[in-house]
Amino acid sequence: MSSAPRFGRIGEGLAAPAEGGERFETLLAAGGGRVERIASRGQSDPPDQWYDQPGDEFVLLLTGAARLGFADGAEKALAPGDWAVLPAGCRHRVAWTDPARETLWLAFHLPPG
Amino acid sequence: MSSAPRFGRIGEGLAAPAEGGERFETLLAAGGGRVERIASRGQSDPPDQWYDQPGDEFVLLLTGAARLGFADGAEKALAPGDWAVLPAGCRHRVAWTDPARETLWLAFHLPPG
Repeated sequence: MSSAPRFGRIGEGLAAPAEGGERFETLLAAGGGRVERIASRGQSDPPDQWYDQPGDEFVLLLTGAARLGFADGAEKALAPGDWAVLPAGCRHRVAWTDPARETLWLAFHLPPG
Repeated sequence: MSSAPRFGRIGEGLAAPAEGGERFETLLAAGGGRVERIASRGQSDPPDQWYDQPGDEFVLLLTGAARLGFADGAEKALAPGDWAVLPAGCRHRVAWTDPARETLWLAFHLPPG
């Protein structure tokens, strides 16, 4: 295990597919936690497909526009600078991302408590 | 433990002190990990004071400008969108932050591996 620092630019990772979809990139995984960069374009999860995770997640929307959907039917629109905490067991899905431009997310998955 | 999501805007947390310094705000702590928002203005750590952490850290600079310093004498300038992975045991300090405007950081602390 190296103790040398690593550096990067959040805007310079994998691009979202031009035809629509998403790309996940793990920037750091350690101690049961994980930092992910997600680039989406026009991507959404099917209405009956839920993320239901064993640990809490923190997500920050950096560019673009998205809506998160929840099991109670609520939706939350996210603009750049908006963050969300998705607790363990909080069923959620990506309801919409802008098809006209890239939406960039930074997600932090924490280990189960 | 609630499974209700929480939302916020990263630009709307505690402001850095006008006279210079920094403000830490924990946005999420779970499973041994922690998400912190840090607002700095003209803050730097003393040359002989090192962060030396048991777990890896991921930090993203969102606004402003900063330089990180390392025990080998190296410095790394960070602009908005720049990220750094600071592995466990990688001694580092904040060498400089812009005194003329606020520097906003998002830091993810992962549990020891």
